[in-house]
Amino acid sequence: MATGKVICVGLGPGDPDLMSVRADRLVRTARHVAYFRKAGHPGQARQIVEGRLDPQAIEYPMEYPVTTEIPFDSPEYRSLLAGFYDTWAARLADLAKAQEVVVLCEGDPFFYGSFMHLHARLQGRAAVEVVPGITGMSGCWTATGIPITWGDDVLTVLTATLPEAELAARARGTDALVVMKIGRNLPKLRRALQAAGRLEQAWIVERGTMPGQRVQRLAEADDVTPYFSIVIVHGQGRRP
Amino acid sequence: MATGKVICVGLGPGDPDLMSVRADRLVRTARHVAYFRKAGHPGQARQIVEGRLDPQAIEYPMEYPVTTEIPFDSPEYRSLLAGFYDTWAARLADLAKAQEVVVLCEGDPFFYGSFMHLHARLQGRAAVEVVPGITGMSGCWTATGIPITWGDDVLTVLTATLPEAELAARARGTDALVVMKIGRNLPKLRRALQAAGRLEQAWIVERGTMPGQRVQRLAEADDVTPYFSIVIVHGQGRRP
Ligand SMILES: C[S@@+](CC[C@H](N)C(=O)[O-])C[C@H]1O[C@@H](n2cnc3c(N)ncnc32)[C@H](O)[C@@H]1O
Ligand SMILES: C[S@@+](CC[C@H](N)C(=O)[O-])C[C@H]1O[C@@H](n2cnc3c(N)ncnc32)[C@H](O)[C@@H]1O
Repeated sequence: MATGKVICVGLGPGDPDLMSVRADRLVRTARHVAYFRKAGHPGQARQIVEGRLDPQAIEYPMEYPVTTEIPFDSPEYRSLLAGFYDTWAARLADLAKAQEVVVLCEGDPFFYGSFMHLHARLQGRAAVEVVPGITGMSGCWTATGIPITWGDDVLTVLTATLPEAELAARARGTDALVVMKIGRNLPKLRRALQAAGRLEQAWIVERGTMPGQRVQRLAEADDVTPYFSIVIVHGQGRRP
Repeated sequence: MATGKVICVGLGPGDPDLMSVRADRLVRTARHVAYFRKAGHPGQARQIVEGRLDPQAIEYPMEYPVTTEIPFDSPEYRSLLAGFYDTWAARLADLAKAQEVVVLCEGDPFFYGSFMHLHARLQGRAAVEVVPGITGMSGCWTATGIPITWGDDVLTVLTATLPEAELAARARGTDALVVMKIGRNLPKLRRALQAAGRLEQAWIVERGTMPGQRVQRLAEADDVTPYFSIVIVHGQGRRP
């Protein structure tokens, strides 16, 4: 009988003060702490908890397999990624036989989070608990100082990885819009918003709630570092 | 020169342990605490902080204007509501001249929150700060134990107050779906999900993360108290 478990803790959008009370407690008392990162990078989730971990805690950086030769969306890369998740699911399941392992996750774990790929693989192999967190988008729309949805506004959340025509159609057919995973798709997203007549209403928030946060109107934004940013169009719905 | 301000604090989905560290601190140290409630009800936000307020704190319950004669969506009711928000915006602006007033809000304040109507009216009249919170929907999808969005899934968030045909069309045209403000619209929402072929995939979460939480498949759900619930259809996107 297993006595341990895997607890995935949503850390919120970045400001450590926006972690939940439960997340803060779990992070401070954890003995085994795992988190995703790119090789050579400290890891976003790990940075949020800097200064909070017990000095005795054992850390397990889970480094995404990187290779410069294989395109990110090829079958080869995907199978590399599947192997990576398989390996870490096995390691965490093994650890969780006798101890509690805390997995750190940016934002809310079940909302486009990498942990979901471990979660799927851990079913039936370990007890798993998930602590929800404030999403990056909540941190970002709060940073704009403008509410996102009023009355019966429809909110659509997209990733900028979708084809340009679909981005445009979705932007046209919604009241409020959030676009995640911008990165190198920013020029495509701009064109799609322009085609949908929504570019003038769009904002871009970089590093929401973190040091170096920047909030700009997308049409006027220059010098954007899009790799950790969200694009937002606020709803304009019913307001008494 | 005003020295005070209005701070609207997102309390998260209901479990007090899911308040942010900042929210918890603001709530415990507040001297002036305002919150919405229906007349004769304790108020959802106020219940979340039960036992946490300073005994010296002064409370300002903001009671929605109720009348049994006027339909909720009539122009008369709307003007009653506008007057209610006007009055409270003036009172809070006045208080905020010299002190800090904490306004309690369920979930995330800028996401379909009543505070937004005060926020709009306070512009230029008081310093206003908003603390994001974990949304009710994050609490609810976490309660189902299933991730909401994978890969490039599209998420649509609706309110069940929309017309049946629009609910059905939106349910058909999205990967993941969240429906808020269920209440008496549940039969209509069921028909719309059925028409869209999504009823079998739908879950209903009542009082997510709170005492009395219930998680059921919507097709099998009976005896639902829909007034504080969310309907969820999980995305099925790309997963390596
Ligand atoms: C893999 S998803 C993880 C989302 C996370 N689980 C959440 O709940 O927000 C990563 C994307 O989230 C967005 N993101 C998350 N937090 C952010 C923040 N604080 N500022 C800007 N973008 C953020 C970016 O678009 C980034 O590409
Ligand atoms: C006026 S909206 C406020 C939403 C809130 N600001 C948020 O961020 O979730 C009220 C609706 O939120 C939903 N809701 C919020 N928290 C919930 C919870 N813990 N369980 C179920 N439904 C919830 C219900 O659909 C309810 O009708």
